[in-house]
Amino acid sequence: MSSTSYSDAHSNTLRSTFTIGILGAGQLARMSALEAFRYGFRVASYSDRTMDEPLQWMTPLNCTGSFHDVEAMVKFASLCDVLTLENEFIDSEVLREVVERSGKPLFPGADTFASIENKRIEKETFQDHGIPVVPFKVVSAIEDFTWFGETYGWPFLLKSSKGGYDGYGNRVVNNYAEALKAFKSLGGDNGHEILAEAFIEFERELAVQVARNSTGSEVYPCCETIQTNQICTAVLCPAPIDVSIQQKAQDLALKAMEVIHGVGLFAFEFFLTKDGQLLLNESAPRPHNSGHYTIEACITSQFENHIRAVAGLPLGSASLRVPSAVMINLLGVHNRETLTEYALDSMQYKDAHLHLYGKKSSRIGRKMGHLTLLSHDASERVEELYHRALSLANQIEI
Amino acid sequence: MSSTSYSDAHSNTLRSTFTIGILGAGQLARMSALEAFRYGFRVASYSDRTMDEPLQWMTPLNCTGSFHDVEAMVKFASLCDVLTLENEFIDSEVLREVVERSGKPLFPGADTFASIENKRIEKETFQDHGIPVVPFKVVSAIEDFTWFGETYGWPFLLKSSKGGYDGYGNRVVNNYAEALKAFKSLGGDNGHEILAEAFIEFERELAVQVARNSTGSEVYPCCETIQTNQICTAVLCPAPIDVSIQQKAQDLALKAMEVIHGVGLFAFEFFLTKDGQLLLNESAPRPHNSGHYTIEACITSQFENHIRAVAGLPLGSASLRVPSAVMINLLGVHNRETLTEYALDSMQYKDAHLHLYGKKSSRIGRKMGHLTLLSHDASERVEELYHRALSLANQIEI
Repeated sequence: MSSTSYSDAHSNTLRSTFTIGILGAGQLARMSALEAFRYGFRVASYSDRTMDEPLQWMTPLNCTGSFHDVEAMVKFASLCDVLTLENEFIDSEVLREVVERSGKPLFPGADTFASIENKRIEKETFQDHGIPVVPFKVVSAIEDFTWFGETYGWPFLLKSSKGGYDGYGNRVVNNYAEALKAFKSLGGDNGHEILAEAFIEFERELAVQVARNSTGSEVYPCCETIQTNQICTAVLCPAPIDVSIQQKAQDLALKAMEVIHGVGLFAFEFFLTKDGQLLLNESAPRPHNSGHYTIEACITSQFENHIRAVAGLPLGSASLRVPSAVMINLLGVHNRETLTEYALDSMQYKDAHLHLYGKKSSRIGRKMGHLTLLSHDASERVEELYHRALSLANQIEI
Repeated sequence: MSSTSYSDAHSNTLRSTFTIGILGAGQLARMSALEAFRYGFRVASYSDRTMDEPLQWMTPLNCTGSFHDVEAMVKFASLCDVLTLENEFIDSEVLREVVERSGKPLFPGADTFASIENKRIEKETFQDHGIPVVPFKVVSAIEDFTWFGETYGWPFLLKSSKGGYDGYGNRVVNNYAEALKAFKSLGGDNGHEILAEAFIEFERELAVQVARNSTGSEVYPCCETIQTNQICTAVLCPAPIDVSIQQKAQDLALKAMEVIHGVGLFAFEFFLTKDGQLLLNESAPRPHNSGHYTIEACITSQFENHIRAVAGLPLGSASLRVPSAVMINLLGVHNRETLTEYALDSMQYKDAHLHLYGKKSSRIGRKMGHLTLLSHDASERVEELYHRALSLANQIEI
């Protein structure tokens, strides 16, 4: 792990001038910053978007520039004591150069990013270490589509190796003609690496967050993520499945974190297949939508442990402090300047917690905020809590 | 209440461009801002101190200027949708002028500040409405000292009517000679109004926070505050006293809040006398050190309800989510650039929550942060929890 040369934990001190530089300025950066501020730290933001991003209203230390501009990022790094990222879309070679030239540590490190840099490398990394992943293959020719379809069945998925989130850049293909068309539209003809991935008839989708640095690691509970149109719309914690499967997902997530020498807060997403298998679907090297429920439901939130991890501090307990919790994403239903309507009922509902990200404009389907509802009744099923949470969240219009 | 002409609750909307202007930039402003950010709001700060105050690292919207400079504050107000204050030391006439000229609402309102503007007016306001206060008298002549000493006993306290916190500006006087000396040193000869106050042999000091706006009010639990050298060093919640006395303190606090038409979050401090009487000692028209424990221990923290109250939103539940909680203030033990040493044990202790305020320098006795410890065991006495919390906090050096 590259963190051993740098850790405040080793000197048992916290400096109030300690500045965490976040490459990004969206809601994940914003919620991380809230926790950094609790420790008296400063937060600086580097973004390729100009003023009006969620984090940019929360610090005087804002830089804007391209994520390809090494020079500008080195200059930004000189303001900071440590760097971290809000998303995984910066080239690992760029990151490596920024770290080398600035002399400032980056967590997660460039090596970690390199090991999960694109979907193929990510899957190979995990598969090589015995972590079951969704069957996949790099495809480029007609025979590949045919072989994949015959081996894993139609339909299957075609994905661009690089980029893509919330389902962007994924195509479900039912036959050879669709595969060919999708291959082209994903840029396969222009040299983009395209992966075929088996279409898993899963029972549920699960997620586990893991925090880790040189002081140790903390594994969060296993939650279920509900996806609608390939966007996460809700998270139920704990996942309503057998405890032994929850435990197995947690074990796999920790193993995956160790395989890639992850430092920071990562989320690991799994398919639970109809025959009870767990397959690692994706990893996210940062606080993740699936972990927003931890803000109120866990003793230490994913964002707090992210900050602790990158600052080299000991991690806090990831235990649930309530029997169960449900988070509902608040997606934009209008294209307009942001206005949150009919949210007041949820503000008065006991132990419902509204979060709004301060985005200037709402767009249909855009993540504008979330609502977390905690249960206090161990006999209430998490599915019942989900329905209570939905009925609150569904009133809200953004 | 002056808020009826202004409230987002009436339109059932939250705007993400909504900007809360805080007159102040210290730790109370910082912790309030953290909650404002959760609702996607923006926070602007006006301070008479230049860059390096806790809140100034948390927003790009910083103004500096004197708290006597109406012009500058009106200009600041023009950036904001609503104004609030971190402390009670701004002249209510200045506030009234800023509100009138800017057209921006201020919560709490200038009338509320006027009704508690100095210690004499505050006591008269509450006493006139049947809330028991510590016996007091404006003193100016030799006969006054003698009469007060003979009526309420020696020693008694002399206080400047205006200003003073954490014991600054208070003198305990044991006899006539000391009273004369203290009167002079407090500026009594130069026209400052001086109060004599009975010295109460109290059993405990208690505090209750109340949030209130046009949508309703929420009363926090009754806690005990521990003072050392007239500075609050710890808070125990609930106060280890009979529930009926807790309830009485909560009732008096709510009544006091209503008497002064308070909008926002206020703290009311009481003496519990040896014969079981409750006397209102002080009110603070803002989030208060006695309520820091609410961040983790209550469903809605004092800071969140402060933000809700001033934004005209419905208030959240003030209920405890754990059997008990203790907060310990972390006071500076060095005069130096801030460095927090030996805090890591507390970071790893289950459900201990460290907060550091990001002050550039520590000074001996300065409030630099706090540590809150939650109990999960209803059979643990709050005094035991206090000792566990102390043993953690005492390791920390700032």
